[in-house]
Amino acid sequence: MKLPIALSNRHIHLSKEHIEILFGEGYELTHFKDLSQPGQYACNEKVDIVGPKGTIKGVRVLGPARPQTQAEVSFADGFALGIMPPVKDSGDIEGTPGAKIVGPKGEVEIDKGIIAAARHIHMHTDDAEKFNVVDKQRVKIKTFGERSVVFENVLVRVHPTFALEMHVDVEEGNAAGVKNGDMVELIAE
Amino acid sequence: MKLPIALSNRHIHLSKEHIEILFGEGYELTHFKDLSQPGQYACNEKVDIVGPKGTIKGVRVLGPARPQTQAEVSFADGFALGIMPPVKDSGDIEGTPGAKIVGPKGEVEIDKGIIAAARHIHMHTDDAEKFNVVDKQRVKIKTFGERSVVFENVLVRVHPTFALEMHVDVEEGNAAGVKNGDMVELIAE
Repeated sequence: MKLPIALSNRHIHLSKEHIEILFGEGYELTHFKDLSQPGQYACNEKVDIVGPKGTIKGVRVLGPARPQTQAEVSFADGFALGIMPPVKDSGDIEGTPGAKIVGPKGEVEIDKGIIAAARHIHMHTDDAEKFNVVDKQRVKIKTFGERSVVFENVLVRVHPTFALEMHVDVEEGNAAGVKNGDMVELIAE
Repeated sequence: MKLPIALSNRHIHLSKEHIEILFGEGYELTHFKDLSQPGQYACNEKVDIVGPKGTIKGVRVLGPARPQTQAEVSFADGFALGIMPPVKDSGDIEGTPGAKIVGPKGEVEIDKGIIAAARHIHMHTDDAEKFNVVDKQRVKIKTFGERSVVFENVLVRVHPTFALEMHVDVEEGNAAGVKNGDMVELIAE
């Protein structure tokens, strides 16, 4: 049972309040390109993330706006920033570290929201039936090729608006030697 | 059966000829700190690697000098350089891409030697007996923690001068959420 994998580069989701602080009053994010998950898109807008040790410039904003601002970065980014990102499921940001976010019109100090996104699989409800798994189940994913790995502890997220795809960060993808669209195998535990 | 893991950051091994071109006639590498493998050491010297897309500055030289110059970089480094490093065992550089190497006293265009080091285990002969594996065998290595993975296709290298340790690059280490000295489990195939 196989599905495609995709590598998520560092990115940030912004709240409406923070969009206005960073880009100006009444500002709306502008569409750059659609992402694989329906309704999600990369924006033309970029911001800088500033930590105690360094700055990462030009971090892509993803839309639409979310209730809470959340930046998803790699461990390598964490070392560069001087902020060690905990591995968290998207949205689970209580107790996570913050940073300064700098936009063209302003800046904001967030007190939480810097995470390394836990590897996960998006599945449409129909896919979950085919794969015989349920929402929030943890599975293993095997990749192929000379750098093949088995990713353990992979969260399954099932929703009627989701498109079938596994998401890893760039370090995880490079460690496995995979590129966007490569097929990987689900192993239910 | 467990052993320690270590993350190798990007580095370069230089031939005597290239040391003299980069650092001056008769130059000898100077010792910065010992590495875990007996006789191997990090040097004070650093060089820049220049590719068609970008430069990586301050790449640490490892000593002693080797018969052939070889730079071990990550896939992320490869994207930055514009040189995709093939995954190779150390020393196996025929047909690999080259780059320009820049030192304080000169520069040299190498026509091969840019690789991503294949994940591998150094084992003393006694350790190989204990683990019941032989030189050049391929095994699996399981890591632990929330980002646990199983690395497949791991090369075992056995030699009476080796100290027991698994080596991965920084992306592989970060993908598994491990740090230097963490214990991992060997699974013979």
